[in-house]
Amino acid sequence: MQITQNQHESKTKLLEAALRVIREKGYQATRVEDVCEAAGLTKGSFFYHFKSKEALALAAAEYWNEVTREGFASAPYQALEDPLDRLLAYIDFRKSLLRGALPEFTCLAGTMVQEVYATHPLLREACEQSISGHVATLEPDIAAAVRKYKVHGNWTPQSLAFFTQAALQGAFVLAKARGGPEVAEMMVDHLRQYIELLFHRNDGVAV
Amino acid sequence: MQITQNQHESKTKLLEAALRVIREKGYQATRVEDVCEAAGLTKGSFFYHFKSKEALALAAAEYWNEVTREGFASAPYQALEDPLDRLLAYIDFRKSLLRGALPEFTCLAGTMVQEVYATHPLLREACEQSISGHVATLEPDIAAAVRKYKVHGNWTPQSLAFFTQAALQGAFVLAKARGGPEVAEMMVDHLRQYIELLFHRNDGVAV
Repeated sequence: MQITQNQHESKTKLLEAALRVIREKGYQATRVEDVCEAAGLTKGSFFYHFKSKEALALAAAEYWNEVTREGFASAPYQALEDPLDRLLAYIDFRKSLLRGALPEFTCLAGTMVQEVYATHPLLREACEQSISGHVATLEPDIAAAVRKYKVHGNWTPQSLAFFTQAALQGAFVLAKARGGPEVAEMMVDHLRQYIELLFHRNDGVAV
Repeated sequence: MQITQNQHESKTKLLEAALRVIREKGYQATRVEDVCEAAGLTKGSFFYHFKSKEALALAAAEYWNEVTREGFASAPYQALEDPLDRLLAYIDFRKSLLRGALPEFTCLAGTMVQEVYATHPLLREACEQSISGHVATLEPDIAAAVRKYKVHGNWTPQSLAFFTQAALQGAFVLAKARGGPEVAEMMVDHLRQYIELLFHRNDGVAV
Protein backbone atom coordinates (compact mmCIF):
# COMPACT_ATOMS: atom_id res chain seq x y z
CA MET A 1 0.00 0.00 0.00
CA GLN A 2 1.48 3.31 -1.05
CA ILE A 3 0.76 6.22 1.26
CA THR A 4 1.67 9.78 0.49
CA GLN A 5 2.68 11.16 3.87
CA ASN A 6 2.13 14.74 4.68
CA GLN A 7 5.55 15.87 5.89
CA HIS A 8 4.13 17.68 8.89
CA GLU A 9 2.13 14.63 9.89
CA SER A 10 5.11 12.32 9.65
CA LYS A 11 7.21 14.68 11.76
CA THR A 12 4.50 14.75 14.43
CA LYS A 13 4.27 10.95 14.34
CA LEU A 14 8.01 10.68 14.93
CA LEU A 15 7.85 13.16 17.81
CA GLU A 16 4.91 11.33 19.41
CA ALA A 17 6.78 8.05 18.98
CA ALA A 18 9.89 9.58 20.58
CA LEU A 19 7.84 10.64 23.64
CA ARG A 20 6.53 7.09 24.04
CA VAL A 21 9.72 5.17 23.36
CA ILE A 22 12.12 7.40 25.34
CA ARG A 23 9.78 7.41 28.33
CA GLU A 24 9.65 3.63 28.16
CA LYS A 25 13.27 2.68 27.49
CA GLY A 26 15.23 5.81 28.28
CA TYR A 27 17.23 7.92 25.83
CA GLN A 28 20.33 5.76 25.47
CA ALA A 29 18.47 2.51 24.83
CA THR A 30 16.18 4.14 22.26
CA ARG A 31 17.36 3.43 18.72
CA VAL A 32 16.29 5.35 15.63
CA GLU A 33 14.79 2.04 14.44
CA ASP A 34 12.62 1.83 17.57
CA VAL A 35 11.20 5.29 16.94
CA CYS A 36 10.57 4.54 13.26
CA GLU A 37 8.81 1.31 14.16
CA ALA A 38 6.65 3.02 16.80
CA ALA A 39 5.79 5.77 14.30
CA GLY A 40 5.16 3.33 11.45
CA LEU A 41 7.63 5.23 9.29
CA THR A 42 10.89 4.49 7.49
CA LYS A 43 14.41 5.57 8.36
CA GLY A 44 14.32 7.64 5.19
CA SER A 45 11.45 9.61 6.64
CA PHE A 46 13.28 9.92 9.97
CA PHE A 47 16.43 11.35 8.43
CA TYR A 48 14.41 13.69 6.24
CA HIS A 49 13.25 15.38 9.46
CA PHE A 50 16.09 14.80 11.95
CA LYS A 51 19.81 14.51 11.38
CA SER A 52 20.38 12.32 14.45
CA LYS A 53 18.78 10.73 17.51
CA GLU A 54 19.96 13.70 19.58
CA ALA A 55 18.29 16.13 17.15
CA LEU A 56 15.07 14.13 17.53
CA ALA A 57 15.35 14.21 21.33
CA LEU A 58 15.89 17.98 21.31
CA ALA A 59 12.83 18.42 19.07
CA ALA A 60 10.88 15.98 21.26
CA ALA A 61 11.67 18.08 24.36
CA GLU A 62 10.37 21.19 22.57
CA TYR A 63 7.28 19.29 21.38
CA TRP A 64 6.75 17.98 24.93
CA ASN A 65 6.85 21.57 26.21
CA GLU A 66 4.21 22.66 23.68
CA VAL A 67 1.89 19.73 24.41
CA THR A 68 2.13 20.03 28.19
CA ARG A 69 1.91 23.85 28.10
CA GLU A 70 -1.37 23.62 26.18
CA GLY A 71 -2.64 20.80 28.40
CA PHE A 72 -2.16 22.79 31.59
CA ALA A 73 -3.16 26.18 30.14
CA SER A 74 -6.50 24.78 28.95
CA ALA A 75 -7.25 22.66 32.03
CA PRO A 76 -10.55 23.49 33.79
CA TYR A 77 -8.85 24.46 37.08
CA GLN A 78 -7.37 27.57 35.47
CA ALA A 79 -10.85 29.13 35.68
CA LEU A 80 -10.82 29.11 39.50
CA GLU A 81 -10.66 32.62 40.92
CA ASP A 82 -8.56 32.12 44.03
CA PRO A 83 -4.82 31.59 43.41
CA LEU A 84 -4.51 29.02 46.22
CA ASP A 85 -7.54 27.14 44.88
CA ARG A 86 -5.83 27.11 41.48
CA LEU A 87 -2.57 25.82 42.95
CA LEU A 88 -4.31 23.04 44.89
CA ALA A 89 -6.41 22.17 41.85
CA TYR A 90 -3.21 21.98 39.81
CA ILE A 91 -1.93 19.38 42.33
CA ASP A 92 -5.23 17.49 42.05
CA PHE A 93 -4.96 17.66 38.25
CA ARG A 94 -1.44 16.20 38.44
CA LYS A 95 -2.81 13.39 40.59
CA SER A 96 -5.58 12.71 38.07
CA LEU A 97 -2.93 12.29 35.36
CA LEU A 98 -1.34 9.33 37.20
CA ARG A 99 -3.29 6.83 35.13
CA GLY A 100 -2.44 4.16 32.62
CA ALA A 101 1.00 2.77 31.83
CA LEU A 102 4.14 4.35 33.32
CA PRO A 103 5.47 5.71 29.99
CA GLU A 104 2.16 7.54 29.52
CA PHE A 105 2.19 9.61 32.70
CA THR A 106 5.88 10.06 33.52
CA CYS A 107 8.02 13.00 32.45
CA LEU A 108 10.17 13.07 29.31
CA ALA A 109 12.54 15.72 30.67
CA GLY A 110 12.97 14.10 34.08
CA THR A 111 13.62 10.72 32.49
CA MET A 112 16.15 11.96 29.94
CA VAL A 113 18.11 14.24 32.23
CA GLN A 114 18.94 11.39 34.62
CA GLU A 115 20.94 9.74 31.86
CA VAL A 116 22.30 12.58 29.81
CA TYR A 117 23.13 15.37 32.26
CA ALA A 118 26.86 14.69 32.20
CA THR A 119 27.25 13.47 28.63
CA HIS A 120 24.86 15.52 26.42
CA PRO A 121 25.00 19.23 27.35
CA LEU A 122 22.39 20.32 24.80
CA LEU A 123 19.91 17.70 25.99
CA ARG A 124 20.55 18.60 29.61
CA GLU A 125 19.82 22.22 28.77
CA ALA A 126 16.62 21.28 26.93
CA CYS A 127 15.45 19.23 29.93
CA GLU A 128 16.34 22.08 32.29
CA GLN A 129 14.35 24.55 30.21
CA SER A 130 11.42 22.17 30.06
CA ILE A 131 11.27 21.73 33.84
CA SER A 132 12.06 25.35 34.69
CA GLY A 133 9.58 26.56 32.08
CA HIS A 134 6.81 24.58 33.73
CA VAL A 135 7.92 25.80 37.18
CA ALA A 136 7.63 29.38 35.91
CA THR A 137 3.94 28.85 35.06
CA LEU A 138 3.24 28.03 38.74
CA GLU A 139 5.09 30.95 40.29
CA PRO A 140 2.49 33.70 39.69
CA ASP A 141 -0.27 31.74 41.46
CA ILE A 142 2.01 30.91 44.38
CA ALA A 143 3.14 34.55 44.65
CA ALA A 144 -0.49 35.74 44.51
CA ALA A 145 -1.51 33.20 47.16
CA VAL A 146 1.37 34.30 49.41
CA ARG A 147 0.18 37.92 49.13
CA LYS A 148 -3.51 37.15 49.55
CA TYR A 149 -3.07 34.85 52.55
CA LYS A 150 -0.21 36.88 54.06
CA VAL A 151 2.04 33.85 54.40
CA HIS A 152 5.59 34.54 55.55
CA GLY A 153 8.41 32.07 55.51
CA ASN A 154 12.00 31.44 54.69
CA TRP A 155 11.17 30.38 51.13
CA THR A 156 10.25 31.97 47.81
CA PRO A 157 7.33 31.26 45.45
CA GLN A 158 9.93 30.01 42.97
CA SER A 159 11.41 27.53 45.44
CA LEU A 160 7.94 26.17 46.28
CA ALA A 161 7.17 25.89 42.57
CA PHE A 162 10.38 23.86 42.17
CA PHE A 163 9.40 21.73 45.15
CA THR A 164 6.13 20.75 43.49
CA GLN A 165 8.23 19.46 40.58
CA ALA A 166 10.73 17.72 42.85
CA ALA A 167 7.88 15.88 44.57
CA LEU A 168 6.37 14.89 41.21
CA GLN A 169 9.70 13.84 39.67
CA GLY A 170 10.47 11.81 42.78
CA ALA A 171 6.98 10.32 42.64
CA PHE A 172 7.71 9.17 39.08
CA VAL A 173 10.99 7.55 40.16
CA LEU A 174 9.19 5.67 42.95
CA ALA A 175 6.35 4.66 40.60
CA LYS A 176 8.92 3.20 38.21
CA ALA A 177 10.68 1.37 41.04
CA ARG A 178 7.42 -0.07 42.35
CA GLY A 179 5.88 -0.72 38.95
CA GLY A 180 2.70 1.35 39.24
CA PRO A 181 1.15 4.73 40.05
CA GLU A 182 -0.14 4.00 43.58
CA VAL A 183 2.96 5.24 45.40
CA ALA A 184 2.98 8.37 43.21
CA GLU A 185 -0.60 9.16 44.27
CA MET A 186 0.43 8.96 47.93
CA MET A 187 3.31 11.33 47.21
CA VAL A 188 0.99 13.87 45.57
CA ASP A 189 -1.26 13.65 48.65
CA HIS A 190 1.72 14.62 50.82
CA LEU A 191 2.58 17.47 48.46
CA ARG A 192 -0.99 18.79 48.70
CA GLN A 193 -0.93 18.49 52.48
CA TYR A 194 2.32 20.47 52.63
CA ILE A 195 0.81 23.30 50.62
CA GLU A 196 -2.34 23.25 52.77
CA LEU A 197 -0.20 23.48 55.91
CA LEU A 198 1.96 26.27 54.49
CA PHE A 199 -1.15 28.32 53.64
CA HIS A 200 -3.10 27.30 56.77
CA ARG A 201 -5.73 25.70 54.52
CA ASN A 202 -6.30 22.79 56.86
CA ASP A 203 -9.90 21.94 56.06
CA GLY A 204 -10.17 18.29 55.21
CA VAL A 205 -6.76 17.45 56.68
CA ALA A 206 -6.84 16.23 60.24
CA VAL A 207 -3.32 17.03 61.39
CA MET B 1 54.60 -3.53 36.60
CA GLN B 2 53.03 -6.78 37.62
CA ILE B 3 50.55 -6.55 40.45
CA THR B 4 48.99 -9.54 42.10
CA GLN B 5 45.45 -8.42 42.76
CA ASN B 6 43.64 -9.69 45.72
CA GLN B 7 40.41 -11.00 44.22
CA HIS B 8 38.27 -9.37 46.86
CA GLU B 9 39.98 -6.03 46.32
CA SER B 10 39.55 -6.16 42.56
CA LYS B 11 35.84 -6.98 42.97
CA THR B 12 35.40 -4.02 45.30
CA LYS B 13 37.24 -1.77 42.83
CA LEU B 14 34.88 -2.84 40.05
CA LEU B 15 31.84 -2.21 42.27
CA GLU B 16 33.13 1.23 43.31
CA ALA B 17 33.80 2.03 39.65
CA ALA B 18 30.29 0.90 38.71
CA LEU B 19 28.79 3.28 41.29
CA ARG B 20 30.77 6.18 39.84
CA VAL B 21 30.31 5.44 36.13
CA ILE B 22 26.61 4.46 36.24
CA ARG B 23 25.76 7.54 38.31
CA GLU B 24 27.60 9.68 35.77
CA LYS B 25 26.49 8.19 32.44
CA GLY B 26 23.48 6.08 33.31
CA TYR B 27 23.21 2.31 33.03
CA GLN B 28 22.70 1.96 29.28
CA ALA B 29 25.59 4.20 28.27
CA THR B 30 27.96 2.47 30.68
CA ARG B 31 30.16 -0.07 28.91
CA VAL B 32 32.10 -2.86 30.58
CA GLU B 33 35.22 -1.12 29.20
CA ASP B 34 34.29 2.12 31.02
CA VAL B 35 34.01 0.29 34.34
CA CYS B 36 37.31 -1.54 33.77
CA GLU B 37 39.06 1.72 32.93
CA ALA B 38 37.61 3.49 35.98
CA ALA B 39 38.67 0.55 38.16
CA GLY B 40 42.11 0.27 36.55
CA LEU B 41 41.45 -3.41 35.81
CA THR B 42 41.26 -5.65 32.76
CA LYS B 43 38.21 -7.19 31.11
CA GLY B 44 39.62 -10.53 32.19
CA SER B 45 39.32 -9.43 35.78
CA PHE B 46 35.82 -8.09 35.13
CA PHE B 47 34.54 -11.36 33.67
CA TYR B 48 36.21 -13.34 36.44
CA HIS B 49 33.83 -11.58 38.84
CA PHE B 50 30.74 -10.79 36.75
CA LYS B 51 29.20 -12.61 33.84
CA SER B 52 27.65 -9.47 32.32
CA LYS B 53 27.04 -5.75 32.77
CA GLU B 54 23.64 -6.56 34.25
CA ALA B 55 25.24 -8.90 36.79
CA LEU B 56 27.62 -6.09 37.75
CA ALA B 57 24.73 -3.64 38.12
CA LEU B 58 22.81 -6.07 40.33
CA ALA B 59 25.89 -6.54 42.51
CA ALA B 60 26.48 -2.77 42.50
CA ALA B 61 22.94 -2.19 43.80
CA GLU B 62 23.57 -4.66 46.64
CA TYR B 63 26.95 -3.05 47.36
CA TRP B 64 25.28 0.39 47.31
CA ASN B 65 22.77 -0.84 49.89
CA GLU B 66 25.54 -2.09 52.19
CA VAL B 67 27.58 1.11 51.92
CA THR B 68 24.62 3.46 52.45
CA ARG B 69 23.14 1.29 55.22
CA GLU B 70 26.42 1.51 57.15
CA GLY B 71 26.76 5.22 56.40
CA PHE B 72 23.35 6.06 57.86
CA ALA B 73 23.47 3.54 60.71
CA SER B 74 26.77 4.96 61.98
CA ALA B 75 25.91 8.65 61.45
CA PRO B 76 26.13 10.80 64.61
CA TYR B 77 22.44 11.80 64.50
CA GLN B 78 21.41 8.24 65.38
CA ALA B 79 22.50 9.00 68.96
CA LEU B 80 19.76 11.63 69.42
CA GLU B 81 17.13 10.52 71.91
CA ASP B 82 13.99 12.06 70.48
CA PRO B 83 12.61 10.30 67.37
CA LEU B 84 11.55 13.59 65.75
CA ASP B 85 14.99 15.07 66.43
CA ARG B 86 16.49 12.00 64.75
CA LEU B 87 14.19 12.36 61.74
CA LEU B 88 14.98 16.06 61.31
CA ALA B 89 18.68 15.37 61.80
CA TYR B 90 18.44 12.68 59.12
CA ILE B 91 17.08 15.35 56.76
CA ASP B 92 19.93 17.70 57.75
CA PHE B 93 22.40 14.87 57.18
CA ARG B 94 20.96 14.31 53.69
CA LYS B 95 21.41 18.01 53.00
CA SER B 96 25.02 17.87 54.18
CA LEU B 97 25.68 15.09 51.64
CA LEU B 98 24.76 17.39 48.71
CA ARG B 99 28.40 18.26 48.10
CA GLY B 100 30.87 17.71 45.32
CA ALA B 101 30.14 16.46 41.81
CA LEU B 102 26.67 15.22 40.87
CA PRO B 103 27.71 11.55 40.42
CA GLU B 104 29.07 11.61 43.97
CA PHE B 105 25.90 12.59 45.80
CA THR B 106 23.08 11.29 43.61
CA CYS B 107 21.38 7.92 43.96
CA LEU B 108 22.40 4.78 42.06
CA ALA B 109 18.98 3.14 42.37
CA GLY B 110 17.01 6.25 41.39
CA THR B 111 19.25 6.83 38.39
CA MET B 112 19.14 3.26 37.10
CA VAL B 113 15.44 2.67 37.60
CA GLN B 114 14.51 5.61 35.35
CA GLU B 115 16.08 3.80 32.42
CA VAL B 116 15.57 0.15 33.14
CA TYR B 117 12.15 -0.14 34.81
CA ALA B 118 10.42 -1.40 31.69
CA THR B 119 13.27 -3.33 30.09
CA HIS B 120 15.28 -5.02 32.91
CA PRO B 121 12.93 -6.58 35.50
CA LEU B 122 15.72 -7.84 37.78
CA LEU B 123 17.38 -4.43 37.88
CA ARG B 124 14.05 -2.72 38.53
CA GLU B 125 13.47 -5.07 41.44
CA ALA B 126 16.98 -4.43 42.82
CA CYS B 127 16.38 -0.66 42.64
CA GLU B 128 12.99 -1.06 44.29
CA GLN B 129 14.48 -3.07 47.14
CA SER B 130 17.24 -0.53 47.56
CA ILE B 131 14.82 2.40 47.85
CA SER B 132 12.19 0.56 49.91
CA GLY B 133 14.90 -0.87 52.16
CA HIS B 134 16.10 2.62 52.98
CA VAL B 135 12.52 3.81 53.48
CA ALA B 136 12.02 1.00 56.00
CA THR B 137 14.89 2.32 58.13
CA LEU B 138 13.01 5.63 58.58
CA GLU B 139 9.61 4.20 59.48
CA PRO B 140 10.29 3.33 63.16
CA ASP B 141 11.42 6.88 63.99
CA ILE B 142 8.42 8.40 62.17
CA ALA B 143 6.04 5.99 63.92
CA ALA B 144 7.62 6.77 67.30
CA ALA B 145 7.40 10.53 66.62
CA VAL B 146 3.72 10.18 65.62
CA ARG B 147 3.01 8.41 68.93
CA LYS B 148 5.09 10.75 71.08
CA TYR B 149 3.69 13.96 69.58
CA LYS B 150 0.18 12.59 69.13
CA VAL B 151 -0.01 13.61 65.49
CA HIS B 152 -3.08 12.45 63.60
CA GLY B 153 -3.52 12.62 59.87
CA ASN B 154 -4.65 10.86 56.78
CA TRP B 155 -1.19 9.38 56.20
CA THR B 156 0.98 6.57 57.50
CA PRO B 157 4.57 6.61 58.77
CA GLN B 158 5.45 4.51 55.73
CA SER B 159 3.96 7.01 53.28
CA LEU B 160 5.87 9.88 54.92
CA ALA B 161 9.05 7.81 54.79
CA PHE B 162 8.45 7.32 51.06
CA PHE B 163 7.78 11.04 50.67
CA THR B 164 11.20 11.88 52.10
CA GLN B 165 12.68 9.69 49.36
CA ALA B 166 10.44 11.19 46.66
CA ALA B 167 11.59 14.68 47.64
CA LEU B 168 15.24 13.58 47.60
CA GLN B 169 14.96 11.68 44.30
CA GLY B 170 13.20 14.67 42.75
CA ALA B 171 15.88 16.97 44.18
CA PHE B 172 18.50 14.84 42.41
CA VAL B 173 16.62 15.11 39.11
CA LEU B 174 16.46 18.90 39.45
CA ALA B 175 20.13 19.09 40.45
CA LYS B 176 21.05 17.17 37.31
CA ALA B 177 18.85 19.42 35.18
CA ARG B 178 20.36 22.58 36.68
CA GLY B 179 23.90 21.27 36.87
CA GLY B 180 24.55 21.66 40.60
CA PRO B 181 23.36 20.94 44.15
CA GLU B 182 21.88 24.36 45.01
CA VAL B 183 18.33 23.54 43.91
CA ALA B 184 18.51 20.21 45.76
CA GLU B 185 19.41 22.04 48.99
CA MET B 186 16.31 24.24 48.60
CA MET B 187 14.21 21.11 48.09
CA VAL B 188 15.55 19.52 51.28
CA ASP B 189 14.70 22.75 53.14
CA HIS B 190 11.09 22.39 51.97
CA LEU B 191 11.05 18.74 53.02
CA ARG B 192 12.29 19.69 56.50
CA GLN B 193 9.71 22.45 56.73
CA TYR B 194 6.93 20.00 55.80
CA ILE B 195 7.96 17.63 58.58
CA GLU B 196 8.19 20.52 61.06
CA LEU B 197 4.68 21.62 60.11
CA LEU B 198 3.29 18.08 60.32
CA PHE B 199 4.71 17.67 63.83
CA HIS B 200 4.00 21.27 64.93
CA ARG B 201 7.73 21.77 65.40
CA ASN B 202 7.65 25.31 64.13
CA ASP B 203 10.55 26.82 65.99
CA GLY B 204 12.89 28.44 63.53
CA VAL B 205 10.33 28.46 60.76
CA ALA B 206 8.38 31.66 60.39
CA VAL B 207 5.28 30.49 58.59
